[in-house]
Amino acid sequence: MLSRHLPILNWAPSYDRETLSADAVAAVIVTIMLIPQSLAYALLAGLPPEVGLYASIAPLVLYTVFGTSMTLAVGPVAVASLMTASAVGELAARGTPEYLGAAIVLALLSGLMLVAMGFARLGFLANFLSHPVISGFITASAIIIAFGQMKHILGIGVEGHNLAEQVASLAVGISQTSFATLVIGVAAVGFLVWARRALAPLLVLLGLSEKLASGLSKAAPVVAVIATTTTVWLLDLQSAGVAVVGDIPRGLPRPTLPEFDAALWNTLLLPALMIGVVGYVETISVAQTLAAKRRERIDPDQELIALGASNVGSAVSGGFPVTGGFSRSVVNFDAGARTPGAGALTAIGIALATVFLTPLLYLLPKATLAATIIVAVLSLIDFGTIRRTWSYSKSDFAAMLGTILATLAFGVEIGIAIGVLASLALFLGRTARPHFAIVGRVPGTQHYRNIKRHEVETAPGLLSIRVDESLYFPNARFLEDVINDAISSDPEIRDVILMCSAVNIIDSSALESLEQINHRLADAGIHLHLSEVKGPVMDRLKRTDFLEHLSGEVFLSQYEADQSLRNGDGLAAE
Amino acid sequence: MLSRHLPILNWAPSYDRETLSADAVAAVIVTIMLIPQSLAYALLAGLPPEVGLYASIAPLVLYTVFGTSMTLAVGPVAVASLMTASAVGELAARGTPEYLGAAIVLALLSGLMLVAMGFARLGFLANFLSHPVISGFITASAIIIAFGQMKHILGIGVEGHNLAEQVASLAVGISQTSFATLVIGVAAVGFLVWARRALAPLLVLLGLSEKLASGLSKAAPVVAVIATTTTVWLLDLQSAGVAVVGDIPRGLPRPTLPEFDAALWNTLLLPALMIGVVGYVETISVAQTLAAKRRERIDPDQELIALGASNVGSAVSGGFPVTGGFSRSVVNFDAGARTPGAGALTAIGIALATVFLTPLLYLLPKATLAATIIVAVLSLIDFGTIRRTWSYSKSDFAAMLGTILATLAFGVEIGIAIGVLASLALFLGRTARPHFAIVGRVPGTQHYRNIKRHEVETAPGLLSIRVDESLYFPNARFLEDVINDAISSDPEIRDVILMCSAVNIIDSSALESLEQINHRLADAGIHLHLSEVKGPVMDRLKRTDFLEHLSGEVFLSQYEADQSLRNGDGLAAE
Repeated sequence: MLSRHLPILNWAPSYDRETLSADAVAAVIVTIMLIPQSLAYALLAGLPPEVGLYASIAPLVLYTVFGTSMTLAVGPVAVASLMTASAVGELAARGTPEYLGAAIVLALLSGLMLVAMGFARLGFLANFLSHPVISGFITASAIIIAFGQMKHILGIGVEGHNLAEQVASLAVGISQTSFATLVIGVAAVGFLVWARRALAPLLVLLGLSEKLASGLSKAAPVVAVIATTTTVWLLDLQSAGVAVVGDIPRGLPRPTLPEFDAALWNTLLLPALMIGVVGYVETISVAQTLAAKRRERIDPDQELIALGASNVGSAVSGGFPVTGGFSRSVVNFDAGARTPGAGALTAIGIALATVFLTPLLYLLPKATLAATIIVAVLSLIDFGTIRRTWSYSKSDFAAMLGTILATLAFGVEIGIAIGVLASLALFLGRTARPHFAIVGRVPGTQHYRNIKRHEVETAPGLLSIRVDESLYFPNARFLEDVINDAISSDPEIRDVILMCSAVNIIDSSALESLEQINHRLADAGIHLHLSEVKGPVMDRLKRTDFLEHLSGEVFLSQYEADQSLRNGDGLAAE
Repeated sequence: MLSRHLPILNWAPSYDRETLSADAVAAVIVTIMLIPQSLAYALLAGLPPEVGLYASIAPLVLYTVFGTSMTLAVGPVAVASLMTASAVGELAARGTPEYLGAAIVLALLSGLMLVAMGFARLGFLANFLSHPVISGFITASAIIIAFGQMKHILGIGVEGHNLAEQVASLAVGISQTSFATLVIGVAAVGFLVWARRALAPLLVLLGLSEKLASGLSKAAPVVAVIATTTTVWLLDLQSAGVAVVGDIPRGLPRPTLPEFDAALWNTLLLPALMIGVVGYVETISVAQTLAAKRRERIDPDQELIALGASNVGSAVSGGFPVTGGFSRSVVNFDAGARTPGAGALTAIGIALATVFLTPLLYLLPKATLAATIIVAVLSLIDFGTIRRTWSYSKSDFAAMLGTILATLAFGVEIGIAIGVLASLALFLGRTARPHFAIVGRVPGTQHYRNIKRHEVETAPGLLSIRVDESLYFPNARFLEDVINDAISSDPEIRDVILMCSAVNIIDSSALESLEQINHRLADAGIHLHLSEVKGPVMDRLKRTDFLEHLSGEVFLSQYEADQSLRNGDGLAAE
């Protein structure tokens, strides 16, 4: 029990020097990658840059203690930062203490809810965010985020609560573009895109090992940071109108607890839940993907607790909502991290940077951070998945497209809510009008298939129907119609066999329909039989008087039913 | 097409004298029953008594033209009247022209929505109101209605928007009870209960035919009306504080259209939809029950149009929302109605009553009408169904109980919404953690069943799992866990067969899970096979590259899969 909720107890006792050195190498690489990302995502969330650094210290230490993935790296990520900006932006103006305070409360509430869900073992609820909805949501968020960074690249102010307003505001302000800012921004975007595509192969050509080349290419954002900061310093571009990060307080955050404000907390409950669940889904899918590669196992319910604790830690140390990040976890994995200890070492790296490096970041252009964000999020747009979903299932594609459009039009919270509801409605709509098949015997076997798809044998006077859905209230009357239509088209029928191999539930409404069907068939001199009724369904039917009133029999298999009724030794012979 | 939407064309051409006389007898009996009911339900809805009569004329004529049930009788009913009072009561004070106007708009909107749903063939949506939810809702409504009539029986005023407030108000006001009113009310309730239970058998004992006795006993409310009105007149009880119906305008309603008021119409949209759908569900189940008895068929989508037209007709003639009533339809059926023509004849009867009888109703005590309502609705509380649901399915019982409690606590609109959402959530929750079984062969057959329930044969190294649910996003990861657990408990396993007889859908999320499972099993040297994949599911899989990457094979039947892999001529021999 203790080691279940404190997974560190499983790996820490055997932690040796070799593991330490592997974890340390990974930690150095992740730290270098994380510094510009932390600053950039704080900017995206509308928060002071140091908040991004704070959110990359305590959460990593707590994940080391509570996490079950050996390689997951938590911290600020793009989508959660966007959701934070959206939730907090309605309550306070950017740059005010109230804005920061609300972001901290958001992390706290989100963390507490995740921990509670973990102890209640509610991890399965995250499954209700289907792949198409998540994928659509991330695509739309990436578009919103990338567009939102355009103002930093152009060096202008942009207002507006939704995409349409922002586009209009950008169109008005574009004439005010700061030329120096634009040059820096475009150069940084160009360099980062080039580095992502071509740097690693180039370094391999230059004789480096593939692993080292890949690791070094991840440091491209740091190169961009150093190059553009130096440029601003050398050419005094700040006085030419290039916006810079400015003064970042030195030193570590002091632990504090946010004050309780019932109205504020109440308003933030729903956004906190959404950020928590979306972040958890991202976290768990990254963690599972990486764990599978090394045949490790993660515990989804414990991951809720670990991510929750990380968020509480972020809040207590003045940070904002954090999540397991995809790209940094992959880097951590590729760099050879062996245990969550790498996370704690990364936290030490970020803490050192917070104490010693912050003065050097004064002249860092905001346009460089915006470029980092744009390049990172554009890779989240996955046209391959969109295309595959379209070809596989129009219904899943509709849910995905609905999520994308709703997110772009109404923002992240309404967008994801509409996505979940649409995917559930589409599923329920399909089960309300289920597929059914009239079946016959595949010759020479005891197997029964759809007469329209297979060459099968049927017997006159005997109708076998397989309904491909659980029988429950949305489709209860549908079965009545199916059977009525079937028997009215063939007056010869004396026996109807309902093959229940795909019926997983019969609820009260469907039971009433079955009683009706049995009654009506009996009146018409037709026997109703059931075959292949599953154990749990049969258990339940036995608790009613349905089986007593059933005009026919219940057969173990469809074959048995068919043989018995066909040979005339069944009820048909009466 | 024309005869589909105008079903009158199917029966009117062959309408003869014999049918007319049968319909006329039924119409007389239903008219006698409907007069006190119309007045009482108008009172329940908070409307002037004549509105109840108006709602029993035009709607019946329109149902005659558009309806497909031969015996359904539409008009004011208890639950729709309660829902009307609830929706309109929040917008205007009882007795004001605004209150009446809002009730008329409610009928109009409800009618237009039903007609639109009928043309869009959305009748199946009514199925989402499951039997337990409808049953719970009607039980709770009956309690609310019966309690709400207590003030008329006691002759006191009662205020309050929900049951708790009304109970408190009644407790305060009970000392003001009007003794004369109480005597009339209790006597009327006693008489009506007695008539319902004992009058028909008594009349049979007196030598009447069973049919006539049953018909006459339905006239008990009219007897109560005549007796109590006469008593009030003889003893001048009006001056003793007995509330009476008072002046009812003579003559037929003049057709008018309600004025368009965007804000009001907007507010009433949702209540109108709810009244329409609840009314439709009641209508369709009455109509289907009666149609089945005579082997007639009704058209559910056309019934939407018919009920919609009836409501539009009610609105245009100054009435309020109407529905197919259970008890009056049964009376109509028992009295021998042959065609919807009986409805038109009933409308003539009510119209005559509106013109000639209304002065006689001046001294009718409201307590008598309240007694009629109480006795009618208490029969709607169906303890038998509640008990049966409890024993059959705890989940359905939870939905029913939730609906009852939510309706009592929060009123009809929130109550039914919670009921529908709860029943959907319970279903989705069950599908999120589906039943699964490891299966083996029933000896001597080609049939495979759960190894825990049946004596079956299994082969070493071969694992056959049957998942009893469609594979879709809420349970996508569940399958990964099931298979991981199964193979980790038996290191001998070389082949896994996923028996898909109960899998009706594999959505994009589940497809990704299957790809993961296939990948992981392949890494562990285990082949994944599928058996009994249904046609529509297979069609879809063929559009992806899943089958190319599948490490095993797809078999038509589980038997074929088992034989092939067991004999070593399958992939297991590789």
